[in-house]
Amino acid sequence: MHDASSQSLITDPNHPLIQRFRSLRTAPGRAASGLYVIEGIRHVFHAAQAQTRIEQLLIAPKALKNPAGRKLARRLRRAGTPCAIVAPELYERMSLAAAPQGIAAILRQKWTPLNAAQPNEGSSWLAVERLESPGNLGTMIRTSEAAGAAGLILIGCAADPHDPVAVRATMGSLFSQKLVRTTAREFVAWSGRRRLMLVGTSPQAARDYRTIRYEKPLVILVGSEKRGLSDGLCRACNSLVRIPILRSGVDSLNVAVAAGILLYAALDQRPPLP
Amino acid sequence: MHDASSQSLITDPNHPLIQRFRSLRTAPGRAASGLYVIEGIRHVFHAAQAQTRIEQLLIAPKALKNPAGRKLARRLRRAGTPCAIVAPELYERMSLAAAPQGIAAILRQKWTPLNAAQPNEGSSWLAVERLESPGNLGTMIRTSEAAGAAGLILIGCAADPHDPVAVRATMGSLFSQKLVRTTAREFVAWSGRRRLMLVGTSPQAARDYRTIRYEKPLVILVGSEKRGLSDGLCRACNSLVRIPILRSGVDSLNVAVAAGILLYAALDQRPPLP
Repeated sequence: MHDASSQSLITDPNHPLIQRFRSLRTAPGRAASGLYVIEGIRHVFHAAQAQTRIEQLLIAPKALKNPAGRKLARRLRRAGTPCAIVAPELYERMSLAAAPQGIAAILRQKWTPLNAAQPNEGSSWLAVERLESPGNLGTMIRTSEAAGAAGLILIGCAADPHDPVAVRATMGSLFSQKLVRTTAREFVAWSGRRRLMLVGTSPQAARDYRTIRYEKPLVILVGSEKRGLSDGLCRACNSLVRIPILRSGVDSLNVAVAAGILLYAALDQRPPLP
Repeated sequence: MHDASSQSLITDPNHPLIQRFRSLRTAPGRAASGLYVIEGIRHVFHAAQAQTRIEQLLIAPKALKNPAGRKLARRLRRAGTPCAIVAPELYERMSLAAAPQGIAAILRQKWTPLNAAQPNEGSSWLAVERLESPGNLGTMIRTSEAAGAAGLILIGCAADPHDPVAVRATMGSLFSQKLVRTTAREFVAWSGRRRLMLVGTSPQAARDYRTIRYEKPLVILVGSEKRGLSDGLCRACNSLVRIPILRSGVDSLNVAVAAGILLYAALDQRPPLP
C-alpha cells in the first residue's frame, strides 16, 4: 500500500474506530447503530461486487499480503471509500479470524420491509421461524444465494444475520440476498394477500417433499432447530412436506441442510414422484 | 434416582474420573485412550438404542430432572452399566452444554477397517477428504444416517468425529453410522478392487448432479471446505458432478449442505434430467 503512508496509523486499542468495530460484534452495538462488520478479502470483495456502500474500510497494510486483497483495497480507496490504517498487532488483536487477512469493513445493515418484498417475478424465498443459531442462519443465506432465491424472511428469529458468526457462514453471500424481518402474524397476513405457494416443513407431514410441484412465486418455510414450525405457520402453508428420515438413529436433519435440500428440490424441473 | 444414595458422590474436580472426562475433550486424550464422551439425554438414549457399550455413565441426579432421562439412567444402571454419581455443581462445571441435563457417558471409539467396509449390499457411503470443521463432519454424519447411508469414510481428515463439537452436531446419530479412516491412496486402491459407483463433487465438473443415475453400491465424495477434492480422488471417480450455483454472490455451498443435497439426490428414484 504505497499510499498508506499519507494517513496516520491507528495503534491505540482505545481509538474510537476500534471501539466501534468491537462494539459491532455485540447485538446491542449493532442494534444501536444499524451497522455491522465484515472481515477478510472474500467478504469485502463480494460487498464491493454487490456495490454495497462501505462506511469504513479498515486495513492493516502489513498484514494484507494477498495481491488480490491489496488491489481490492487500492480500488476501494481510489473510489473514495473512507479507509483507516491499523497497526498489524492491533489488527491481529481485533480480528476474529484464525488467519487475519488485514482487511475489514463496517457496513450499514440493509433490511427490506415486508411489503417491499415482491415475490411476484418467478422468485423463491426462504422463510425461517424462530431460528436460534447464527451459524445455521448464515449457512442458509449462502444456500439461498446459491440456489437463486431472492432472500430470507426472518420470522421471530433470535439469530441475527449480522452476528459475526452468521456473517462468516454466509461466505460473502450476504450482500445480494434481501433480508426481511417480521412476525408470524404479519407474515400470514402478507402471504394471504399474495398468490404465493407456501411450502412448510414438518416431520409430521404426510407428504414427501419430492411428491409436490413447486410453483413460483414460492416461499419455503423452515422452523427452529428445536421446535420446528409453529402451528400457526403450518396452517398458513399450501403444502406441508417432510424430508424422509430413513434410519432410526436420528430424529431429524440439521435445519440448514433441510433448507438446502428443499431449495434445490424446488429448482428441479423433473416431474414429482407419484 | 432412589438408588443413587448407595454410591459415593463425586464432588472433587480432581477426581480421576472427572480428569479423564475432561481429557477426552482433547484430541491427545482421545487418541491415547480410544475413548470419547457424549452428553445429554438424546445422545445417551441413541447410544443405548444402538446397543453401544457404555464404559462409564456419569449422572448428576439433582440436575437430571427430565423423567425420560431418569428412566433411561435407571434402565442403564440396572443393566449393569458402571455409573458414577456427580455433584450437580461439579457436573455444571464439567459440562459443555448450554443447559446441562445431568447425564453424560464415556464410550469407546468404534472404527471400521476399510477392508471390513462392505459397500456391496445396495448401500451408499459418504466419503469426505481433508475435512477441517468438526461441526461440518458431525452434521454430515447426521445427514448420512438420515438418508440411510451406511457410514462415512474419512480420507486424510483433520476433523475428528469424536470431537465434542462433532458429537454434538451428530445429534445422536454417531452410534449406528460406520466410521472408516484411511488415506487417499488406500481408498483409491480399495475402491478399484470393488464395483462401486464413485461420484465426486467439483465446482469445475461439467455435469449437473441431477443428470446422472446413482447406482448402488455408491460412494459420494466431497472435499475439504477450502480446497475441495484432490486431483487424485477426482480421477478415481466414475462421475464428477457439480451442484449449480445460480447467483454470483457466492462461490460455493457449505460442504455439509452439498453432501445433504447429493445424498438425497441419490435416494431419489426419478429419471435423471436430460
